Amino acid sequence: MNTIRTGLVGITGYAGMELARLLAGHPAMRLALACSRAGAGKTLGEFYPFLSSLAGAEVVISVFTPEEAAATCDIVFLATPAGAAMGMAPPLLAAGCKVVDFSADFRLRDAQTYESWYSLAHSATDLLEQAVYGIPELYADDIARARLIANPGCYPTSAILGLYAAIKHDLILPDDIVIDAKSGATGAGRKPVPPMLFCEVADTFRAYSAPRHRHTPEIEQEISRIAGREVRLSFTPHLVPMNRGMLCTIYAKLKNPHTSFERVHEAFCDAWRNHPWVRVLPEGALPETRYVRGSMFCDIAPVLDARTGRLIIFSVIDNLCRGASGQALANANLMCGLPLNAGLAQSPFA
Amino acid sequence: MNTIRTGLVGITGYAGMELARLLAGHPAMRLALACSRAGAGKTLGEFYPFLSSLAGAEVVISVFTPEEAAATCDIVFLATPAGAAMGMAPPLLAAGCKVVDFSADFRLRDAQTYESWYSLAHSATDLLEQAVYGIPELYADDIARARLIANPGCYPTSAILGLYAAIKHDLILPDDIVIDAKSGATGAGRKPVPPMLFCEVADTFRAYSAPRHRHTPEIEQEISRIAGREVRLSFTPHLVPMNRGMLCTIYAKLKNPHTSFERVHEAFCDAWRNHPWVRVLPEGALPETRYVRGSMFCDIAPVLDARTGRLIIFSVIDNLCRGASGQALANANLMCGLPLNAGLAQSPFA
Amino acid sequence: MNTIRTGLVGITGYAGMELARLLAGHPAMRLALACSRAGAGKTLGEFYPFLSSLAGAEVVISVFTPEEAAATCDIVFLATPAGAAMGMAPPLLAAGCKVVDFSADFRLRDAQTYESWYSLAHSATDLLEQAVYGIPELYADDIARARLIANPGCYPTSAILGLYAAIKHDLILPDDIVIDAKSGATGAGRKPVPPMLFCEVADTFRAYSAPRHRHTPEIEQEISRIAGREVRLSFTPHLVPMNRGMLCTIYAKLKNPHTSFERVHEAFCDAWRNHPWVRVLPEGALPETRYVRGSMFCDIAPVLDARTGRLIIFSVIDNLCRGASGQALANANLMCGLPLNAGLAQSPFA
Amino acid sequence: MNTIRTGLVGITGYAGMELARLLAGHPAMRLALACSRAGAGKTLGEFYPFLSSLAGAEVVISVFTPEEAAATCDIVFLATPAGAAMGMAPPLLAAGCKVVDFSADFRLRDAQTYESWYSLAHSATDLLEQAVYGIPELYADDIARARLIANPGCYPTSAILGLYAAIKHDLILPDDIVIDAKSGATGAGRKPVPPMLFCEVADTFRAYSAPRHRHTPEIEQEISRIAGREVRLSFTPHLVPMNRGMLCTIYAKLKNPHTSFERVHEAFCDAWRNHPWVRVLPEGALPETRYVRGSMFCDIAPVLDARTGRLIIFSVIDNLCRGASGQALANANLMCGLPLNAGLAQSPFA
Repeated sequence: MNTIRTGLVGITGYAGMELARLLAGHPAMRLALACSRAGAGKTLGEFYPFLSSLAGAEVVISVFTPEEAAATCDIVFLATPAGAAMGMAPPLLAAGCKVVDFSADFRLRDAQTYESWYSLAHSATDLLEQAVYGIPELYADDIARARLIANPGCYPTSAILGLYAAIKHDLILPDDIVIDAKSGATGAGRKPVPPMLFCEVADTFRAYSAPRHRHTPEIEQEISRIAGREVRLSFTPHLVPMNRGMLCTIYAKLKNPHTSFERVHEAFCDAWRNHPWVRVLPEGALPETRYVRGSMFCDIAPVLDARTGRLIIFSVIDNLCRGASGQALANANLMCGLPLNAGLAQSPFA
Repeated sequence: MNTIRTGLVGITGYAGMELARLLAGHPAMRLALACSRAGAGKTLGEFYPFLSSLAGAEVVISVFTPEEAAATCDIVFLATPAGAAMGMAPPLLAAGCKVVDFSADFRLRDAQTYESWYSLAHSATDLLEQAVYGIPELYADDIARARLIANPGCYPTSAILGLYAAIKHDLILPDDIVIDAKSGATGAGRKPVPPMLFCEVADTFRAYSAPRHRHTPEIEQEISRIAGREVRLSFTPHLVPMNRGMLCTIYAKLKNPHTSFERVHEAFCDAWRNHPWVRVLPEGALPETRYVRGSMFCDIAPVLDARTGRLIIFSVIDNLCRGASGQALANANLMCGLPLNAGLAQSPFA
Repeated sequence: MNTIRTGLVGITGYAGMELARLLAGHPAMRLALACSRAGAGKTLGEFYPFLSSLAGAEVVISVFTPEEAAATCDIVFLATPAGAAMGMAPPLLAAGCKVVDFSADFRLRDAQTYESWYSLAHSATDLLEQAVYGIPELYADDIARARLIANPGCYPTSAILGLYAAIKHDLILPDDIVIDAKSGATGAGRKPVPPMLFCEVADTFRAYSAPRHRHTPEIEQEISRIAGREVRLSFTPHLVPMNRGMLCTIYAKLKNPHTSFERVHEAFCDAWRNHPWVRVLPEGALPETRYVRGSMFCDIAPVLDARTGRLIIFSVIDNLCRGASGQALANANLMCGLPLNAGLAQSPFA
Repeated sequence: MNTIRTGLVGITGYAGMELARLLAGHPAMRLALACSRAGAGKTLGEFYPFLSSLAGAEVVISVFTPEEAAATCDIVFLATPAGAAMGMAPPLLAAGCKVVDFSADFRLRDAQTYESWYSLAHSATDLLEQAVYGIPELYADDIARARLIANPGCYPTSAILGLYAAIKHDLILPDDIVIDAKSGATGAGRKPVPPMLFCEVADTFRAYSAPRHRHTPEIEQEISRIAGREVRLSFTPHLVPMNRGMLCTIYAKLKNPHTSFERVHEAFCDAWRNHPWVRVLPEGALPETRYVRGSMFCDIAPVLDARTGRLIIFSVIDNLCRGASGQALANANLMCGLPLNAGLAQSPFA
């Protein structure tokens, strides 16, 4: 394979860290540029001691300019806060770079929805049309042709993969869905604020952002697309005292309360047959976040609550790898004509 | 106050440990008997080094016999596995002892329901009538007169306290309730099994016992009693990598989707006005397990999800104190004519 | 007892939080003043939801002025960063308040040592003479007479209590002592910095500040005082992924390599016979931080490494309670003529 | 490369699990046999859900017989408890298999030392001569020629790599060494015993096995070999509430108390120049277990405590990978003529 020159903007957050980890072992991508205000001037190996002596460790962290990025990179990952990518992406695209954006800037097709949930005006609405929502199992062809990827949020990734088979196979009523989500603390990012200190997270449990977490409209947009009609749902995130991992417990009313478990399980297996990263668990098994740690796997268990006529779906991912950097890399692989799983074939770190 | 001679059967489990901790600081109860096969022959202080030099530490752990218990105790706490108390309670009651049972043996009024969920035949069905379900806020008078208390499960305690105001004030449809519950690991007990080893619980998250956890019929029985009609609901427990604490996220459809938050909040405050252990949080605040750690508090936050017409209730307790041993002690206080909060007035251990 | 009006400056740090917890249950002290820039304007109950509805919750947090403190308080606790108390204490003392300082400002008798380890000029050197180092077991009489207490650091408390008996009974060579210390994360305080984020502390282990942690001269000063000659030692702190607790593993060469364990154990028991908060463990037992959690206990186990002629001493405390706020409260009790353990009699929170 | 048929006995412990993870990504080894009484009859993918769909997942776990192992494997890893390998290895070697033993059975050259520390009679003393102690950086040539590897313990690996440079360059007095070691909980294995339950390890800290942990004679044997004379030292292990990782804090007296840090650092860099898995940190940096997680790296920081004339060495490894299964695989690579780092090139999982 040709070496692909890669840029990473926002190196000092957890998604940036995870992508640096993955790139260090990628067979065809080479880290050419690492940007961040925080660590500027240090090498990546100095900033992240775990990377010391690995590929990319020698790259000196610099402050982002579109000119330098365009001159040195074939593809640029933007792991930046909401509102940054809409300014960075246009010049990069204009200069011929491919772009994978980790933020919500290009995820919501409707600029007004973006503005109302993110309290930011959108300055690049013309790009919303061409941005492709990057779930490889669902949109591989579009991704392969895309120049701009809206990399999905971690909660949406887990929720969409969890619900997809049930909606596609028309098993549930899309109007009565509850998503109770639980995430490890890397999901909150690396900004030092008191509620994310060790002693404020360890040995405790809490919900947050209820009832209006910003990932809600993204989940509704994509579930509506799959269902073929507008869906409203309840989504509640919780913070688990662990570093990584995400579990969504999804409650939905069965269309037909007498649906058998076999029928359900078959529908799930069928939907994911050709997608090895989505593992449908055998009857009786429930997924755990550790079993997918550091990997692209999404482990899904549908459970029938016959007493109440509900289908309960458990969907588990690693929020940093599948929910952010790994999925970004998978999208980039497709965009660059590489095998989907290049650099992403490690065993889960159980 | 007169000193009350107290027996504790099942001293080596977490509920027994917690009760021993609380009794060591109780102004009127004195540990007279501590039973367990596991630690028999040791003093309590040897078995639990944290108790060393405190009240009760010198008690020698012995194997339970009803005769010894009846001879040495005014009240006996049975912190034993399902099926044990139905054999132990009758001779104790016959001998004039008061009994507080931590297990499900006397919680379900219908012996058949017990037998179908616990796969055990019930050998003391005649006591089901007189056993009082021990939630002090709801049944204080009955408890004060009772000789046998069915101490509630931890999940039911949290769920019932969370739902009570909404049902009493007729805010929600009782037919569409989902309880997504999360518990610390002490809830699983102290039996050494591989899934509860540190390395199998730390840094991971999972659901368990879905969709048929044994606390389901107990929750349904009590919610039905409050609602005045039979209620079926979905209940799904999850294991949080922390020692103590329990949070229930309860989803229900509003009877009137246009109900205001003010109306809801008022209803909750009204329901709990005279019960200082139940704290209704101010608007915008969400509860955390650490804020009630080691205490009798139940912190409740109702949240309106206006977009979907749902009321989401967050209810938080300490699973060992409020959810087991502290509540048992509160019930015992009432049974013995002591102030409800005797020995239970500590600040939460935040 | 008379009610003692108490002020707490630095309410928003972990030591302030712990003291607020303890004061809420104190029989004779009443929180009259709570100061902090961070939370000013909120009530303590709003700032610390766990305190809601408990004693002190209604106090409104204010910005410290010596005038207000002197007017409203009999005793003031200064839980402030290094350098603050030397400015705050003089006017308070002049106005007749008693003062307990949590910082190092009055711990080191030699101002130059302070200045070289803390890089701060000392502005109240005249108070160094009268400040009493507050370990109640060692200096109860001086503490009872004192108006200004230098409340010991957490590491020094654990190390000094651990070493005291061995030095007093002349068992070890004071010239070859190594203290390898491990602390929970509350020890680092509540300032939001990246290295103390949950994801930077959980599931990892590291040393810090080696070889020059600021508690070193304080340990050496007090050990020298006990030994009756100048002692230099190695002290290395480590950060444990837990909230509270501190364990010092202390290595020393036996004066006589043939000393028996019985002799050692007897010496330790003898030294602490009349001090119930120091528990010398029986042979074969090793202490754990959870057994002293939230309490004033210091659990100590001397172990003989006969193969190498070393005495290894394990000394465990709760860094926030015994190592800071609880010890401060014990000192205040003595200063105010209250029983030493007033408000400090809870069982460890195991 | 030729495919090498690999057997793994003791698949259900943590070392077996880690080796299964590594083998799933190994370019030249294929899991041909997985043995364990516990999981016999299940496939590896069923037993370890994280392995599902990866290489090796389809292997059915069986009960070990030397005949089957010899018939199906070129090399066999014995991840079995002390005492098992001395029975299993002889027939395997006789049948021409290579063997890597994870236990202490072949580590101690002196059978009597083994018997006194392990309380087991040694039944294969004739193999002690030919067993090679498997630290690749120190004994690569011997390992490449060996048929039986005594894979080192985790504590010895960390301690030996930490001390090697200081002894080789004659910087310290080998007679006054203290090793204070801290390990994650996987080090205790997967046997379900109460002290290793989540609630007995989380949020607490303790030492164990002091002063006679079984790894002591192994450390002394190897340090003596490096020092060229018999060494006795103090070794004290502690349990950290984390899954993986190990840090040794090593205290030693400098031979010349005026040695400069530059001299020390140079000696360490020099010793490890050609061994990329050992990373000597730059001045001022201290290692953390997370920076080597899941990798073969050993991060080492020498620190000069000039005040006391001590050299303090921090040495960090992943106890499961470098301290057990990864090192075993590296040894196997050498034995099979493969590149040392085949299957071991992943980035640390920070």
